[in-house]
Amino acid sequence: MSDLPFLQPLHPHVIALDAMGGDRAPAIVVEGAAKARERYPEIRFIFFGDEAKIEPLLGTYPILKKSSEIRHAVEVVSADAKPSVALRQGRKSSMRLAINAVAEGDAACIVSAGNTGALMAMAKFVLKTLPGVDRPAIATLIPTEKGETVMLDLGANIECDAENLFQFALMGAIFCRTVLGRSEPTIGLLNIGTEELKGHDEVRIAASILRERPIPAKFHGFIEGNDITAGTVDVVVTDGFSGNIALKTIEGTAHLIAHFLRQAFDSSVIAKLGYVLSRGAFQKLKSRTDPRRYNGAMFLGLQGVCVKSHGGTDGEGFACAIGVAHDLVARDFNRRIAEEMAREYGLNSERTKMGEG
Amino acid sequence: MSDLPFLQPLHPHVIALDAMGGDRAPAIVVEGAAKARERYPEIRFIFFGDEAKIEPLLGTYPILKKSSEIRHAVEVVSADAKPSVALRQGRKSSMRLAINAVAEGDAACIVSAGNTGALMAMAKFVLKTLPGVDRPAIATLIPTEKGETVMLDLGANIECDAENLFQFALMGAIFCRTVLGRSEPTIGLLNIGTEELKGHDEVRIAASILRERPIPAKFHGFIEGNDITAGTVDVVVTDGFSGNIALKTIEGTAHLIAHFLRQAFDSSVIAKLGYVLSRGAFQKLKSRTDPRRYNGAMFLGLQGVCVKSHGGTDGEGFACAIGVAHDLVARDFNRRIAEEMAREYGLNSERTKMGEG
Repeated sequence: MSDLPFLQPLHPHVIALDAMGGDRAPAIVVEGAAKARERYPEIRFIFFGDEAKIEPLLGTYPILKKSSEIRHAVEVVSADAKPSVALRQGRKSSMRLAINAVAEGDAACIVSAGNTGALMAMAKFVLKTLPGVDRPAIATLIPTEKGETVMLDLGANIECDAENLFQFALMGAIFCRTVLGRSEPTIGLLNIGTEELKGHDEVRIAASILRERPIPAKFHGFIEGNDITAGTVDVVVTDGFSGNIALKTIEGTAHLIAHFLRQAFDSSVIAKLGYVLSRGAFQKLKSRTDPRRYNGAMFLGLQGVCVKSHGGTDGEGFACAIGVAHDLVARDFNRRIAEEMAREYGLNSERTKMGEG
Repeated sequence: MSDLPFLQPLHPHVIALDAMGGDRAPAIVVEGAAKARERYPEIRFIFFGDEAKIEPLLGTYPILKKSSEIRHAVEVVSADAKPSVALRQGRKSSMRLAINAVAEGDAACIVSAGNTGALMAMAKFVLKTLPGVDRPAIATLIPTEKGETVMLDLGANIECDAENLFQFALMGAIFCRTVLGRSEPTIGLLNIGTEELKGHDEVRIAASILRERPIPAKFHGFIEGNDITAGTVDVVVTDGFSGNIALKTIEGTAHLIAHFLRQAFDSSVIAKLGYVLSRGAFQKLKSRTDPRRYNGAMFLGLQGVCVKSHGGTDGEGFACAIGVAHDLVARDFNRRIAEEMAREYGLNSERTKMGEG
């Protein structure tokens, strides 16, 4: 086990927070941490960022303050920094120091609402990928007609070969089993038709790999864009270009329909009265599609848990992202990925005997 | 002009219909034609398909019958036929004969609710692409917060190079100008970020081409998935893989929200009462997102107008698809594409002097 120390974090209840990432940092980061602390009383935080700003905010949450530590960071990765530049020049940034804390064993995971590209570049560089994983992927939960579906990749890898897609499928399946508790997850490859001959080489080869190799899931086959929110499968696998477009198209369409609904209900007095009576129903709808509930994109396949919060979220949204990181650590997600990759690719037994620590 | 006879159809008011394509053919084809005939009294139809089935249906629409002709076709392209097989073996199919009618000048356009891949393969083979156009694209209108946006390609070309994307942009822009009457359409390239460095080579090169060459539109730059329904641009340009996924993701998300709404309004008596009062508002919403209104995917870039109706639509939806074909012919869309391509690629003057016929 000595070669995979990240599988046994020294401080499993400690979460490193990039306190300076996101539109309204550090306020929403501290607020989110306070909310998360109420939900998971065992967790402790290390806030990385401007001490002069964080300290007074923490002062307003006495319980949170007792279980928190601030580590001063002088720099902030800007929202529009190029990943390569952030990687070279951001060594003293709050984001980088928070990631370092995970690599050094001070924290079990990191959550940031900062620049996605910079976060992925730094996390890859500092944490490295899990043995057997060629490329990390970004994953998130999507609300569906049947519950929730995990989709990956959402933008880390613009172009993916069949083996990458296969690995995304494995990671998604293990996420479903360990974190969502679904014993037999189904996997769908996003394509533009369900027939075997559809799509480009990568998806067709990935489909044949998924049919041939033993996997801890059931391969459903190809799915189409409408299957994502229909909940046809538990895991939607795609390249980062299509995945990012699909995710943002879902957000945009939900926004469009909310816009149409508002216009329709504003159009007459009777409709307005109907709206008043229907407020409870709309609240229900709103809560089911609340983007804060689905906040927290997971960077899967790294030697450490890293979760990206939406930059524009509020305290509640940030607390949800912390919850995602918490669950990945608590369910020992990375150990299961490492075991699965070791089995899949026959990595040496020193590494595969995860249980022997 | 003798080399481009398709630009002056002998029978500009005649529409060829594949009467056997779609789930409920030929009934919905005849019903749709009857509705379209009411909207455009000048048009006439040639129905291709099983005369024994079409004849009695036509009998129930005396006015339509007077302006229609049936041409018997013994074969039908099945919904699951591979395009290559349909092309080789479907020479006597209703779909093929309807396309032939356009090539031979008997009709100005063709509408089919049949197998999309087969329709595209046959239309390309029989009609050929317009001079200068490397690949035809599938386009459709999408409802947005600002009105309507045209998106292409939706699946004809899984992989596209930068020049293909540029040509799609031109065709989309000309569609906006001629059919939608927008004098200065804006073009957006679908990507996973708006920064210049985002995305794969093809989209980045296409962006630089669109910035450099004079085009009959304004190049907005990159857009993301949520911009499609926000109506950020008039024309969304993308490869057929991403475009198809985006289109179906929009459909799926609309379906999901309708599902959530139904559940929310079913959850209490007060909500149900609210629904009754809100019925007018919901009708308004429904009509704005009615897929029948947006039925009729256009195959752009061919030497003839070809429109694909959704296979599962009803008479109203099929009538809308006929309307799309009608508008493309009436607005002389193909002539404008041919002119633009001639200008863009400096095709010989014999071909470019479209006006001299």
